Amino acid sequence: MSEKPETHTADAVRESFHRQQVMHLIKASMPVVERGRTEIHLPHWQGVEQQHGFVHGGVVGMIADSAAGFAAMTVAPENASVLTVEYKLNLVAPAQGEKLIARGKVVRPGRTLVVTTAEVYAVADGRETLCALMQQTIMIVTNRAER
Amino acid sequence: MSEKPETHTADAVRESFHRQQVMHLIKASMPVVERGRTEIHLPHWQGVEQQHGFVHGGVVGMIADSAAGFAAMTVAPENASVLTVEYKLNLVAPAQGEKLIARGKVVRPGRTLVVTTAEVYAVADGRETLCALMQQTIMIVTNRAER
Amino acid sequence: MSEKPETHTADAVRESFHRQQVMHLIKASMPVVERGRTEIHLPHWQGVEQQHGFVHGGVVGMIADSAAGFAAMTVAPENASVLTVEYKLNLVAPAQGEKLIARGKVVRPGRTLVVTTAEVYAVADGRETLCALMQQTIMIVTNRAER
Amino acid sequence: MSEKPETHTADAVRESFHRQQVMHLIKASMPVVERGRTEIHLPHWQGVEQQHGFVHGGVVGMIADSAAGFAAMTVAPENASVLTVEYKLNLVAPAQGEKLIARGKVVRPGRTLVVTTAEVYAVADGRETLCALMQQTIMIVTNRAER
Repeated sequence: MSEKPETHTADAVRESFHRQQVMHLIKASMPVVERGRTEIHLPHWQGVEQQHGFVHGGVVGMIADSAAGFAAMTVAPENASVLTVEYKLNLVAPAQGEKLIARGKVVRPGRTLVVTTAEVYAVADGRETLCALMQQTIMIVTNRAER
Repeated sequence: MSEKPETHTADAVRESFHRQQVMHLIKASMPVVERGRTEIHLPHWQGVEQQHGFVHGGVVGMIADSAAGFAAMTVAPENASVLTVEYKLNLVAPAQGEKLIARGKVVRPGRTLVVTTAEVYAVADGRETLCALMQQTIMIVTNRAER
Repeated sequence: MSEKPETHTADAVRESFHRQQVMHLIKASMPVVERGRTEIHLPHWQGVEQQHGFVHGGVVGMIADSAAGFAAMTVAPENASVLTVEYKLNLVAPAQGEKLIARGKVVRPGRTLVVTTAEVYAVADGRETLCALMQQTIMIVTNRAER
Repeated sequence: MSEKPETHTADAVRESFHRQQVMHLIKASMPVVERGRTEIHLPHWQGVEQQHGFVHGGVVGMIADSAAGFAAMTVAPENASVLTVEYKLNLVAPAQGEKLIARGKVVRPGRTLVVTTAEVYAVADGRETLCALMQQTIMIVTNRAER
């Protein structure tokens, strides 16, 4: 019957990422964008540390939230925006090492709500350790609804 | 029988805040530290924005997480650290305006786990609007356990 | 411009509660229904216990989820249903005593999503002890959307 | 140095399940208990329904919470109990069909805290549909601490 609308291209998702000033501030990049999943990488540098020299849990949450949100964007119609409704993050190990990798993925795409998860790994000497686990609800807002 | 240990002083909590590099990076301050509650303030500036010009939800989460975590620190023994076990954040309105105020408070202090909540308000023209609501679990780790 | 639609009456909310078979199964009642808040009461009886003789955490979650969901229903249009999108529950003390009281309330009513909280208290010898804290997202689904 | 303590046997976990009165009340069973994972099955019957004839979201939460909690018990020392600290549940589809299967698993076993997840599937005509997703924190309490 009705054609399924086109979803955002990987380029459109990358452009949206680049318009997030705070991703530049923390020096994050998003080298992976595929249908239903993304990866955000963050080098460990002094500016994102908490008092023990690990990456701050709030920064871990920020890249988890974003990785999963952009994963949701890859399954949303190209004329729609995605908003984080809520997320829940467990921090399971200190975020230490040379860099962090946040992997976001879509678990259940809906027309209005998309449920996603993200895992954040700390990389030290090439070995990955799980440091956080997130479950998130994203809302798809069409242009119409936005005005 | 046993004396109740002294908890962290407001000064000790403020010093811990100042050792969090990322709070300087995002230009956050913590003007309020009282027993069981704190406030973190964040000016709205370009560096913390997402693609629509609002403060990034991950930054909202970061100041909520920290405000509630430091509130927990005010009820923890002075020889103990506090770690975020997990938090859950609902973003209920865009974080727009001149600044954000995150108010963290202790709901249920335990010996090992402390349950806290935080509310984040956006301030525009002197009027506060609730923009986020958080529920969090904090773990108290004594020196002994840390080594 | 457009008239604001009527919301569900307290009677309509009570009827919806009574159609939930499982509330009869666990012997729960809902003596309080006001705009934006409800109370569900649960006597402590053997059928709802876990292995230590306390009320099962899942039952605590069930009455918290329902109390807050029905609170959301009181602010939803009368031709709309409410669905639980997600909830997060902290169990902060054993659910012991003669009965439990779950108090649900609306924190942020939206057109599509409503954010609520609930607190569950255990009552022993007339004294209430907080035993659980919940934060929840509810979706309002209009008749149109349901079909 | 110190020997690693024995963990609960599958039989001990099953016995604990059987001591939960509420599992009998809702007619749940736990046919699968392995190291780090369990399954709880629930037939769809009238007693566990909500107002639309689906299984109540609180019941979905109850079997998810229990499945993951018992998964945590399989990795806990045999002289220790497990307590749910908190859980967060997304309900992603109506719980309809002949029965529900909740699959709990340990994601990150710690000495004090264990992080788990659960997925709940609705089974209709032999086909499984994901209806809920949970993320949970469990605390291990040794005998000593309990007294």
